[in-house]
Amino acid sequence: MTEIGIGICGGGYMGKAHAVAMSAVGAVFNTALRPRLEMVCASRSESAERYRAAFGFARATADWRALVADPKVEAIVIATPQDTHRDIAEAAFALGKPVLCEKPLGASIADGAAMVSAAEAAGVANMVGFNYVRTPATQFARKLIADGAIGKVTWFRGEHTEDFYADPEASASWRTQGMANGTMGDLAPHMVNAALALSGPIAKVMGEVETVHAERPGGRVTNDDHAQIMCRFQNGAMGHMYFSRIATGRKMGYAYEITGTKGAIRFDQEDQNALWLYRMDGPEETRGFVKILTGPAHPDYEPFCQGPGHGTGYQDQIIIEARDFLRAIETGEAVWPTFRDGHEVNRVIAAALASSEAKSWKDINSF
Amino acid sequence: MTEIGIGICGGGYMGKAHAVAMSAVGAVFNTALRPRLEMVCASRSESAERYRAAFGFARATADWRALVADPKVEAIVIATPQDTHRDIAEAAFALGKPVLCEKPLGASIADGAAMVSAAEAAGVANMVGFNYVRTPATQFARKLIADGAIGKVTWFRGEHTEDFYADPEASASWRTQGMANGTMGDLAPHMVNAALALSGPIAKVMGEVETVHAERPGGRVTNDDHAQIMCRFQNGAMGHMYFSRIATGRKMGYAYEITGTKGAIRFDQEDQNALWLYRMDGPEETRGFVKILTGPAHPDYEPFCQGPGHGTGYQDQIIIEARDFLRAIETGEAVWPTFRDGHEVNRVIAAALASSEAKSWKDINSF
Amino acid sequence: MTEIGIGICGGGYMGKAHAVAMSAVGAVFNTALRPRLEMVCASRSESAERYRAAFGFARATADWRALVADPKVEAIVIATPQDTHRDIAEAAFALGKPVLCEKPLGASIADGAAMVSAAEAAGVANMVGFNYVRTPATQFARKLIADGAIGKVTWFRGEHTEDFYADPEASASWRTQGMANGTMGDLAPHMVNAALALSGPIAKVMGEVETVHAERPGGRVTNDDHAQIMCRFQNGAMGHMYFSRIATGRKMGYAYEITGTKGAIRFDQEDQNALWLYRMDGPEETRGFVKILTGPAHPDYEPFCQGPGHGTGYQDQIIIEARDFLRAIETGEAVWPTFRDGHEVNRVIAAALASSEAKSWKDINSF
Amino acid sequence: MTEIGIGICGGGYMGKAHAVAMSAVGAVFNTALRPRLEMVCASRSESAERYRAAFGFARATADWRALVADPKVEAIVIATPQDTHRDIAEAAFALGKPVLCEKPLGASIADGAAMVSAAEAAGVANMVGFNYVRTPATQFARKLIADGAIGKVTWFRGEHTEDFYADPEASASWRTQGMANGTMGDLAPHMVNAALALSGPIAKVMGEVETVHAERPGGRVTNDDHAQIMCRFQNGAMGHMYFSRIATGRKMGYAYEITGTKGAIRFDQEDQNALWLYRMDGPEETRGFVKILTGPAHPDYEPFCQGPGHGTGYQDQIIIEARDFLRAIETGEAVWPTFRDGHEVNRVIAAALASSEAKSWKDINSF
Repeated sequence: MTEIGIGICGGGYMGKAHAVAMSAVGAVFNTALRPRLEMVCASRSESAERYRAAFGFARATADWRALVADPKVEAIVIATPQDTHRDIAEAAFALGKPVLCEKPLGASIADGAAMVSAAEAAGVANMVGFNYVRTPATQFARKLIADGAIGKVTWFRGEHTEDFYADPEASASWRTQGMANGTMGDLAPHMVNAALALSGPIAKVMGEVETVHAERPGGRVTNDDHAQIMCRFQNGAMGHMYFSRIATGRKMGYAYEITGTKGAIRFDQEDQNALWLYRMDGPEETRGFVKILTGPAHPDYEPFCQGPGHGTGYQDQIIIEARDFLRAIETGEAVWPTFRDGHEVNRVIAAALASSEAKSWKDINSF
Repeated sequence: MTEIGIGICGGGYMGKAHAVAMSAVGAVFNTALRPRLEMVCASRSESAERYRAAFGFARATADWRALVADPKVEAIVIATPQDTHRDIAEAAFALGKPVLCEKPLGASIADGAAMVSAAEAAGVANMVGFNYVRTPATQFARKLIADGAIGKVTWFRGEHTEDFYADPEASASWRTQGMANGTMGDLAPHMVNAALALSGPIAKVMGEVETVHAERPGGRVTNDDHAQIMCRFQNGAMGHMYFSRIATGRKMGYAYEITGTKGAIRFDQEDQNALWLYRMDGPEETRGFVKILTGPAHPDYEPFCQGPGHGTGYQDQIIIEARDFLRAIETGEAVWPTFRDGHEVNRVIAAALASSEAKSWKDINSF
Repeated sequence: MTEIGIGICGGGYMGKAHAVAMSAVGAVFNTALRPRLEMVCASRSESAERYRAAFGFARATADWRALVADPKVEAIVIATPQDTHRDIAEAAFALGKPVLCEKPLGASIADGAAMVSAAEAAGVANMVGFNYVRTPATQFARKLIADGAIGKVTWFRGEHTEDFYADPEASASWRTQGMANGTMGDLAPHMVNAALALSGPIAKVMGEVETVHAERPGGRVTNDDHAQIMCRFQNGAMGHMYFSRIATGRKMGYAYEITGTKGAIRFDQEDQNALWLYRMDGPEETRGFVKILTGPAHPDYEPFCQGPGHGTGYQDQIIIEARDFLRAIETGEAVWPTFRDGHEVNRVIAAALASSEAKSWKDINSF
Repeated sequence: MTEIGIGICGGGYMGKAHAVAMSAVGAVFNTALRPRLEMVCASRSESAERYRAAFGFARATADWRALVADPKVEAIVIATPQDTHRDIAEAAFALGKPVLCEKPLGASIADGAAMVSAAEAAGVANMVGFNYVRTPATQFARKLIADGAIGKVTWFRGEHTEDFYADPEASASWRTQGMANGTMGDLAPHMVNAALALSGPIAKVMGEVETVHAERPGGRVTNDDHAQIMCRFQNGAMGHMYFSRIATGRKMGYAYEITGTKGAIRFDQEDQNALWLYRMDGPEETRGFVKILTGPAHPDYEPFCQGPGHGTGYQDQIIIEARDFLRAIETGEAVWPTFRDGHEVNRVIAAALASSEAKSWKDINSF
């Protein structure tokens, strides 16, 4: 066992989630690399100190450059606003330090492309924090599809729907300003990443993006409330995705249905321990969707408990992510989703936005 | 109570369903008009006679003109192939006889328009057999939306998915030939009708239609396996529909999710006695989707049983349809969906097909 | 095809259900025997005439003896109060006429035993109307267990729960008077019959019967609100059943879970088209409960529709029952549940009542 | 913030779960007391050292007395076999150190009683590790019932069912030897504790305990495979519980259904983020079970994530438990379930075993 000093930029919701994960991952997975919470960075010294104390870091700073440069910080987690991602990542890679960056990758296609180049030039571990894709259920779905359990995919339907802005009377805030905080910037990346993981690259898209409640108490809304994408995958499958922050009643509607020539898969994060699988085999009379409860037989599940059905939760996804990041650092092998995978997500989203604007299909390769 | 002589053109699956419904509807609903199974028509005399005996009609014929003209036939059900609908309906209307016509309305937009004119000129009862829309659950959904229970609709997602052609090795047949028998001709009309009933007229569409398995044992496939439509309703709601006969694992995937500014509704015909309703009221801690089991409190349910939860099935939809047709004849009031409503469905589908061809959005008003 | 004249004693809820079923069954199943609604009997002439007109019978009477004796009445359905069952059945059997008797069989163990003797002496078709057991789902469950799909049964849990008397302020009525109308008389027979059909004879029971709301507006309650039974089946399985009319929220809680050494089955009538099956075979990673939607592959389903998932409802159960009764008349072969099976149900219930009284286990053979 | 040195006796499954929880709880809940993993104890030095390294403890020992007596160990978690619980707890209490003891409390009623006395004499925090009761869903159910949301409880049905010994060919092991490892010793305590938490004290029981597979490869089975209890609560409610390790298909069947005079609650740990609530209010047409997804509005949920539906998992229960134990230490206020509550569980189980033996009802007060 070797200790590794972790520096986390950002102490908000995701910064905390990563701090908890780094505290727990060693005991949970008995990892070879053992995280030590070395330093946390926030925009102001007082909040940095507060995060330090609350999460158990050794030191705090308000200067991300100090954190990145600190010799005891050996790996970096970026959980700051989107427009800071590129600078931090490039600085870290310049020093040969591995980076786990929260999604989306950068503030623009250009930023993302630069981050991919920097990561690949450095040749160190680089991952994007699409944590939902890490559940045992979704990892098992990925394996099933790769193994041909449902045959050739013909149809993919995904959604990431929540209702935190469903109420038209909810006030405007930073969340209603700026593309990065709208549906396409905040929710779409998760499901687009899942689509790429499950069904492979997307070839073209036809998008429709909309602000439903343009005026809210407190001001004008400048980003989108919901959006849909029709798409075609490189493997030929037809697809559709929907993203919404006004999906009344949906709390964590990260859900997909995948149809293949030999079977089908269904998943909804609101019941994240179940994966539904249909296979066109055996006698017709006993066919149906099987409700599989994830357990020790499934990817990434084993260490959590003795028996199936005990259940993984949200925080467990981040702990698995921490484990995978440590593993990538240790072995030098890339773990999905790398910066390149995150960049692919950004290209799909850029194409969808352009398509909505132009009211016509867009080829991903133009982005 | 007054008897009314019923003539049914067609003795196949839907012809039988209507015959059973007409046998049962009087006792079930204690209707004022009492159907008498007067005459059944089929393409050949032998099959007509077989249907007569099996379903309990008084007489049989292989000549639909004879059936329509027969003085004891007072109302007509059309359950023959699509290209015969117009002629039969026009002949019936010319004699002032009410018509219940199986969907889709006619073989073309032009046929449908002519049928609407004939029906409205005759001024008698005219209905299209979109039977799925008649379940107590869907009728209650319609009432809830009309009453404002979920506020203004912002999103409609519907599908009609089955898997009877999911197996790529299933042989070509009449079902794989001709637009009327493809997904857009056979399945889409049901869900488009539901969309119109639940969220109102559609303004424009962007469609994508595809034959996935172009070659099957026995020959080439000339119609579509699945299709999707992005749409915009006149009320401003964004929408999406998907239709498929290759949706492995789906047996009766007539399903919709409707989001409004104050709530949401979900329904799946595979559990046709449940309607899921979310309302953004009361304390957050007790909010959630309510699984409402249809019962005596809901539209069209009462006569079936003493208590809620007993359950309606497929045949019950057709019996309710028969009741509504009889009621329209008796009262002279139009009952959804009239020929005009059915024609509106055809226009949406025509626009979607044109949109898929042109790869661009199409306005419904051009069709 | 041969016509058969049907006489129905009783025109209330079940009388109507049987009348509708007899109207529809010929067309639905293309039966060899074709029911003709010959005569209906009610306690008063006016109501008998009203039922005649509403349900479509040829004649009406207020004298059940006249109905039974009428030469054009060839088969009899008993849907009158429990204490009249024996007399009517015995009169019918004396004339060699088949009888379908609503549950429970008679007003007492002695009555039931006498009815079994009369039926078996007459050697004609005799069935008890436990209609819920006729769904394709439950018939398939029965077949699966008989075929060994779940191995040896080790545990059976059943319930029949509704909430029509859940409100303590609901008024007393005929339903709150007399053992026959309490939970053990009205609801328990259905589930006990299912238990016998699915897991075989019961050897001993330990019951607990209770009136929770002894005083209601309008008077004192003299029968039970809910009850439970622990039991042991002859096959060695342990069991439990619960019956309640105060099960707040339950509309048709006719539900069972059956565990075997190789699998398990779950069913709930509130979603009557689904049967859940778990089998301990294949790799652990793809095991889970399969949600099987009943369809053409399942017993008694075929005639209702073309494809699976279309759904059967409550009335369909009664139509299937009518079909089975006609088949028993035609072939002379007994169809579950015969009078003897219904008598077995009564014995279990009598033992449970005695056990509750004595607070000790009771052997079924003493009853 | 004050550090507190934690000593854990036992490094197996539950020892690990508690170690992870103590690592994470500070950052998750920003607790005032901050656990420091001071010492772990196992039966052999090598395993103790292995646990120390894997879980991140400062020191290891094979002598639990050394752990208890160590001045830097300020609070103790007992996760060793049942027959060691009493000695360790008494030693800790003698030194005034708080104890969190894994369930069940002791190896016998007498041991449990002694542990209660020792805990209460010491006057320090004492809790039993019935972790399942800590989910936000079950804590919310408890609150709803206490607040009268479902009125007076009339019926409680609980089960704790798993299938780890469902296969008759699974080999005998330590799990098939000794009462403590059978269904009544291992699974029943969890659900009996839930029953007490949700519906209050139990007055009497009628139990039935059984070894279904008495012979397994590797030897004779000396404890029970499944068991059921009929019970009566002090509040008058009727109840039933079932426990099984041979419940084929059930992975974490910790489930309950509670009926009251005004509503009902349903829960199943296999979908641990959902609580189903029915309330008899509002118009009948919109009543039904509400599927409530636990989120920030619910007890103990807030710190885990920003929004509802993200989900808690098994490990989260243990983290909440750690938080509650720390809170009890800090504030001196008892947190359910205390040793006294755990002792009450043992009494119910002892009465059930005696009842099964005697085949008659047993009063809890005799135990």
